[in-house]
Amino acid sequence: MKEFVAGPLLSKVITPEDLRKIPKEKMAQMCQELRDYIVDMVSVKGGHFGASLGVVELTVALHRIFNTPYDQLVWDVGHQAYGHKILTGRRDQFHTNRQYKGISGFPKRSESEYDTFGVGHSSTSVSAALGMAVASKLQKLQDKQHIAVIGDGAMTAGLAFEGLNHAGVENSNMLVILNDNCMSIDPNVGALKEYLTDITTSSTYNKVKDDVWHLLGKISKFGPNAQAIAQKVENAVKTSLLNQSNLFESLKFRYFGPIDGHDVMRLMDVLEDLKNIPGPKLLHVLTKKGKGYHYSETGNPTQWHAPGLFNKETGEIVKVVPKSPEPPKYQDVFGHTIVELAEKNEKIVGVTPAMPSGSSLNIMMKAMPDRAFDVGIAEQHAVTFSAGMATQGLIPFCNIYSSFMQRAYDQVIHDVALQDLPVVFCLDRGGLVGADGPTHHGAYDLAYFRCIPKMVVSAPMNEEELRNLMYTAQTGKYGPFSIRYPRGKGVMQNWKTPFKEIPVGKGRKVKHGEEIAILGIGHIGNLALKAAEILEQEGISAAMYDMRFVKPIDETLLHEVFSKFDKVITVEDGCIQGGMGSAVLEFMADNDYQATVKRLGVPDRYIEHGTQNELYKECGYDVDGIAETARKMAQKAGAKGELSYS
Amino acid sequence: MKEFVAGPLLSKVITPEDLRKIPKEKMAQMCQELRDYIVDMVSVKGGHFGASLGVVELTVALHRIFNTPYDQLVWDVGHQAYGHKILTGRRDQFHTNRQYKGISGFPKRSESEYDTFGVGHSSTSVSAALGMAVASKLQKLQDKQHIAVIGDGAMTAGLAFEGLNHAGVENSNMLVILNDNCMSIDPNVGALKEYLTDITTSSTYNKVKDDVWHLLGKISKFGPNAQAIAQKVENAVKTSLLNQSNLFESLKFRYFGPIDGHDVMRLMDVLEDLKNIPGPKLLHVLTKKGKGYHYSETGNPTQWHAPGLFNKETGEIVKVVPKSPEPPKYQDVFGHTIVELAEKNEKIVGVTPAMPSGSSLNIMMKAMPDRAFDVGIAEQHAVTFSAGMATQGLIPFCNIYSSFMQRAYDQVIHDVALQDLPVVFCLDRGGLVGADGPTHHGAYDLAYFRCIPKMVVSAPMNEEELRNLMYTAQTGKYGPFSIRYPRGKGVMQNWKTPFKEIPVGKGRKVKHGEEIAILGIGHIGNLALKAAEILEQEGISAAMYDMRFVKPIDETLLHEVFSKFDKVITVEDGCIQGGMGSAVLEFMADNDYQATVKRLGVPDRYIEHGTQNELYKECGYDVDGIAETARKMAQKAGAKGELSYS
Repeated sequence: MKEFVAGPLLSKVITPEDLRKIPKEKMAQMCQELRDYIVDMVSVKGGHFGASLGVVELTVALHRIFNTPYDQLVWDVGHQAYGHKILTGRRDQFHTNRQYKGISGFPKRSESEYDTFGVGHSSTSVSAALGMAVASKLQKLQDKQHIAVIGDGAMTAGLAFEGLNHAGVENSNMLVILNDNCMSIDPNVGALKEYLTDITTSSTYNKVKDDVWHLLGKISKFGPNAQAIAQKVENAVKTSLLNQSNLFESLKFRYFGPIDGHDVMRLMDVLEDLKNIPGPKLLHVLTKKGKGYHYSETGNPTQWHAPGLFNKETGEIVKVVPKSPEPPKYQDVFGHTIVELAEKNEKIVGVTPAMPSGSSLNIMMKAMPDRAFDVGIAEQHAVTFSAGMATQGLIPFCNIYSSFMQRAYDQVIHDVALQDLPVVFCLDRGGLVGADGPTHHGAYDLAYFRCIPKMVVSAPMNEEELRNLMYTAQTGKYGPFSIRYPRGKGVMQNWKTPFKEIPVGKGRKVKHGEEIAILGIGHIGNLALKAAEILEQEGISAAMYDMRFVKPIDETLLHEVFSKFDKVITVEDGCIQGGMGSAVLEFMADNDYQATVKRLGVPDRYIEHGTQNELYKECGYDVDGIAETARKMAQKAGAKGELSYS
Repeated sequence: MKEFVAGPLLSKVITPEDLRKIPKEKMAQMCQELRDYIVDMVSVKGGHFGASLGVVELTVALHRIFNTPYDQLVWDVGHQAYGHKILTGRRDQFHTNRQYKGISGFPKRSESEYDTFGVGHSSTSVSAALGMAVASKLQKLQDKQHIAVIGDGAMTAGLAFEGLNHAGVENSNMLVILNDNCMSIDPNVGALKEYLTDITTSSTYNKVKDDVWHLLGKISKFGPNAQAIAQKVENAVKTSLLNQSNLFESLKFRYFGPIDGHDVMRLMDVLEDLKNIPGPKLLHVLTKKGKGYHYSETGNPTQWHAPGLFNKETGEIVKVVPKSPEPPKYQDVFGHTIVELAEKNEKIVGVTPAMPSGSSLNIMMKAMPDRAFDVGIAEQHAVTFSAGMATQGLIPFCNIYSSFMQRAYDQVIHDVALQDLPVVFCLDRGGLVGADGPTHHGAYDLAYFRCIPKMVVSAPMNEEELRNLMYTAQTGKYGPFSIRYPRGKGVMQNWKTPFKEIPVGKGRKVKHGEEIAILGIGHIGNLALKAAEILEQEGISAAMYDMRFVKPIDETLLHEVFSKFDKVITVEDGCIQGGMGSAVLEFMADNDYQATVKRLGVPDRYIEHGTQNELYKECGYDVDGIAETARKMAQKAGAKGELSYS
């Protein structure tokens, strides 16, 4: 294994306490060493990159000025927390980042007391930090500080606004740091982003304000009396400057900034000042994603968000060239297919909440900019906005990762399904996603969508089925229609087959068999098929069915299965409570069938990170796991058979 | 039946087209007649009251100025839409409001083309209207107007903010009317509310602004050139007035107001002007809930939100005095019990998203104001805020109606359950809620919570169990813990029994039986018990079990059941896909039991409004329905038995 060598200062830091012992004036060097360490590590180990580089100075300043872990520091989303992890006891484990059994790519409470709140999904930090601040107030820990670091992208989500709206009137000790880099994973969008640009560029006004509050921060240190006077002065200044002009001040936060987030000395001074200012406050910090590494700083920030491996000297991103042509990613099949369909059907529009590149909707955004919408990190709005368009006769394809769809669950039920509107939900990252881990696994969608009346719940087994399900859904004949597919590649090299409508609620037999039936749903069915083929070679005759629809489930096919088989395995890349397997059991109960049914899927616990194959194996539905389950069922039946002969 | 007589003007109005034929100067009288009609009707028929009275002038003005239903008018939540319904073809059906098979208490697309978007849950209108506006732009319907009417309470929800953030940068024809009455059902809270009060009371500034834009609106009518000039003037005025001071202007909306929402003539003028101003605009209208009826205008607006029946002459609310003492409402058991527990356990805090009176958390808010939080209409924040408090050792009781919990599903999974935090979710209004109908039925929670790892999913059969489940949960030993109970009354008169911990995952046998087993979960188990008693009298020996927990499900009890019974009925007041019955089927499959199982619960379709008993009956799980199911199963077995003897 390559050795990762920390610089002379960084190598002295095991915890932030060590950081605080190093003279303040060395902090610029510390930042350089931390940045170098991240570049060294991510270039050969992979992971998220640009976000952590952008907050190196902020990370050092926060841990130096605040008394972590007593003071509570909450990183929003957590893509940016690599520096934080390295400074808080995990430098030497950092090379295991995002690997199976290694440390998590996100802050995680079970991993460190410095990780105050587990993250992965965005925009939770204000609410979480407010909860902590209110608890500290109740516990009379007046000196305890609570800091939420949130990006301008994350700030567009409703949850962040709800948190600010409450925090503004709770007089608790709370600092929100708005890390403004104009980016989510893709460039940030929306009115808030434009507003932040406006205030950032209004320099005279900010200069005056900046000087005044800096002075007042200093006065505040002289105790409560001085604080009271300072506050009066500030109020007077505010009135004269019409400081209410600020959106955050409208929400009763005291707004400070914007300041340069790459000036670590200034950041430390400012944070020190803010410690002494009571109540809810927001510090607007300007940073650049990918800062300080030439290629990411000057390159495409979306590409450098999580570039994979790269040559740190040349900035060249390592492209793994496959020996033979490979199947496409499902997301790209979606991206190309929606354009193909939209060219013929003018009713089609596309919607993504801040995932143009992750969903490949960027292909449509480029091809037909008027008909494809990036609405920012705003899953709820994405769904209700789609519902609104559908009322006017359009067919919106609303593409949301399975785990993020959890955030728009009510909107799916209340605004789309209850009104029987033809919104097509494309759930990318359905099933176990791999290195992003439990916050991002799309484990629940089959269960939580299946209980919604009128919702079509489908999952394609390959690229052609994805295309044909999209083709079927865009007719608008079936009302709300969900299509879920996993992270990663499909199985077909020649996937651009002519469109064919798929009868809704119809599965198909993929492989004939006599002894045992394996029912798969979605891409994971390919593993089930392989298992069936292996079993066949071993003398266990296994049929394999591709259910395609969890709802409506194919009752004709199930009648066939249960008339013929008394041993059935269901396989899904999703939770086994309430999922496809449960739908099969419900069918059995409703139709009085008796059979031994073994449900394979994500068990009733949180699955950590690793490669998808490692996780499938852990959950028992990799090819071996499926085959082994079948063997046991066959043996058991055999055993019973033997007994009856004895 | 009492005849409801419309006044001379109102009686001429079948649709808004008729309204537009009546001279403008008669609109004040029209408002009076509409208000009278609502008072007449609601006083003897019940329903929501204060909200509709508050928007009588707005309703008349909107339908008079805009070309509904071509122009798209979206009412947020819909409590306020009675006037709208009466003016849009439903006056003569209005006496069936909220009754079984009658018209809905909310706007509903299937009911009228004037109901452009079905509502019930709050804060959807901005996103929905934006979707419509964008669709119209794509369809080149430049003249089409899109209006969202949203309350200041609904504006606190993140979804509304997400909608504004997107709408601000979409140059579509969209008007948001902020109906500012300082109320949700309870008084509105939060920073936004304070901000709105601030701008409302800043009169000089508003006066100048008001005059200017009114003038500019008039200029705009002279065509595109005039519009361009007007816009330049407006921008100049804005700069000099530092109009960016406005929060909505920060989000790139053009802000107008505040104006008196009870001056119908002024409202009509203003709306006429706004028609000609392109792009996203917000009109801030000040109204009073309960306006124009003496008792509601001067009384407690929360009480007059939905007062039940009342004597319209005296304002006396009809109190139905029961002949004998009645059991309490479940919500009050919650409200009193949390105070009782919190007095002994200082870790307990209470959280409600804008439902202090609906949840009865107001009892705790009064008794211990520091420890009970109304966070506004903000379910997502309520959950993540609770999670934040839980990280600091507190035990938050987060009380959210079952159907509203759909809005915080991701926060439950990602912020609470994944981190195994001891947040107690009290899900009020679990099951069919009655007159509020499909938007409010708590039909899915057992299914959507059951698939979440680590979550305890429980439902008490009576008041004592609710208390004891709360007592059990507040120990914090079990991590995330949900307790769901229905709308309405329990079954015990003497419910303040001493606390006893309930073993988590343990059900109980309530009634012995030999032939058939009925498994109930929650309050609906009382109906199952009654059915079992009736069956016993008929000679069918039915056991009845109270499962208490859907997760972890009581496996010992289920082994007992399936060892003894081959006929089992499950009864739940929730969807039968993925619910308690499915958990029982999963247990059977995992343990190789064979039995005939009939699952009773909410079927796979949307159930409309009616009384709870009417709806239970429709779904087949009222007492008769349960008994009938058992009879059929017994008969069928009998028939089989006979065959085997033949």
